Amino acid sequence: MAVPYANCFQLPKVNSKCHIFSSSSGLNTKASPAYCCLRTSSPISHVEAKVDPLLDSVKWDDKGLAVAIAQNVDTGAVLMQGFVNKEALLKTISSKKATFYSRSRSTLWTKGETSMNFINVSDVFLDCDRDSIIYLGKPDGPTCHTGAETCYYTSVDNIINDPPVDGSKLALTTLFALESTISQRKEELTENPDSKPSWTKRLLLDEKLLCSKIREEANELCRTLEENEDQTRTASEMADVLYHAMVLLSVKGVQIEDVLQVLRLRFAQSGVEEKKSRKSS
Amino acid sequence: MAVPYANCFQLPKVNSKCHIFSSSSGLNTKASPAYCCLRTSSPISHVEAKVDPLLDSVKWDDKGLAVAIAQNVDTGAVLMQGFVNKEALLKTISSKKATFYSRSRSTLWTKGETSMNFINVSDVFLDCDRDSIIYLGKPDGPTCHTGAETCYYTSVDNIINDPPVDGSKLALTTLFALESTISQRKEELTENPDSKPSWTKRLLLDEKLLCSKIREEANELCRTLEENEDQTRTASEMADVLYHAMVLLSVKGVQIEDVLQVLRLRFAQSGVEEKKSRKSS
Repeated sequence: MAVPYANCFQLPKVNSKCHIFSSSSGLNTKASPAYCCLRTSSPISHVEAKVDPLLDSVKWDDKGLAVAIAQNVDTGAVLMQGFVNKEALLKTISSKKATFYSRSRSTLWTKGETSMNFINVSDVFLDCDRDSIIYLGKPDGPTCHTGAETCYYTSVDNIINDPPVDGSKLALTTLFALESTISQRKEELTENPDSKPSWTKRLLLDEKLLCSKIREEANELCRTLEENEDQTRTASEMADVLYHAMVLLSVKGVQIEDVLQVLRLRFAQSGVEEKKSRKSS
Repeated sequence: MAVPYANCFQLPKVNSKCHIFSSSSGLNTKASPAYCCLRTSSPISHVEAKVDPLLDSVKWDDKGLAVAIAQNVDTGAVLMQGFVNKEALLKTISSKKATFYSRSRSTLWTKGETSMNFINVSDVFLDCDRDSIIYLGKPDGPTCHTGAETCYYTSVDNIINDPPVDGSKLALTTLFALESTISQRKEELTENPDSKPSWTKRLLLDEKLLCSKIREEANELCRTLEENEDQTRTASEMADVLYHAMVLLSVKGVQIEDVLQVLRLRFAQSGVEEKKSRKSS
């Protein structure tokens, strides 16, 4: 299989008018006419020589499929899970848009081709057994066809023990569960302004108190270094900094995902610059 | 199917001597003798009445299986992916230890039963199609049989473009990729102390500069609120606070995962107290 991978990750994406593989359901990529628009007459590149063995190394199941999990690179949220065949994986690598193989329709499909909520894949990871794949990327919008941010909003704990009012709860990891809790407290302030305020609500209501706490906690974090306090104390003070700063984000209507995106873009840039400086030296 | 779910999530775990389902490979839970140690003669509880329809609502494939993804509740890292049948899912719900169905050995297996690196599941999520499951939990140690933290350490981007020296790179999301970068800079300081220091290296070497920057950035974050600056500015200042505070964590040898665990335990506790106060009022 000789396919130019000019568009792999660090290079511009494939022309969207190309519709690579769009009508193909076959597993044998060599035989697929859809390859035409990726093929050229140029000799096999260094990159191609690496991708072909990679695709062959995946342990495809008896139907030629492997599991693929799409994950938000900033939040870590598992957005959705589908299956891929060799063509779907190749298309994802070349187009940088998360692409799957639909078992019910026996065809490739790119998440977002209808909704325009593409998942822009920054890297693909294979597991130790080479039969499970992560698409790490940034979604353009909600991933679930229901409009939810991710497809995983049915909590077994909620069903068994504590059904929430709105009937759903996303699979949130710690930082985002905290953000959600702060956001709930903010809503409760509007809904029931006379209720006994929690600490979070007091902070949300009193900007002076909030800013004084953020400065105080940042200072205490520094003092764990300056006064050589133990690691438990550092972790605890950092937790205080994070919590209070996240209340400020909530007051300002800024999401922690936005902050993480700033960090990612900043470090991607500094990484590129660092590599350039290494090459020039 | 009448099984008491006395141990589901909010209650103590099943006695480890019980070995529920350990020798069973069947998909029909009604017929399994392994159910004995979960069964009692008590009437079907409110909880049981909810779990049975839940298990029946999963869209098991033609082999009676569904995909299960284990995710670290603090870091969001996808730890591993396996398959589950109805018994494996039920065992996970009742024991709170991530349990799968091995397709090659045709038997249930609990991650950690050999290595003792269990994944302690705090909640289980079903996707919109009910054919994919997330086990959200805390691992006792590295999940991969290779000793790696997760099974996803083979990066396609690395293979194609930029192979790292050690040949592997975990699927890290933004905050943890930043932590890893800071950690690399710290190692480089020891390996090559005379190299031109980056900003991160300067901060790692100069505690006074680092603490002064943390206090300065916390102050600037507060000023975005006090001086009514725009959201972009708040996100940018929060990114600065996070980055500089994470350099301090690195100096102290504290991982961001430890900080997130502190936050999770703190908020779980305050949640319990809040529910109690709601009930008493």
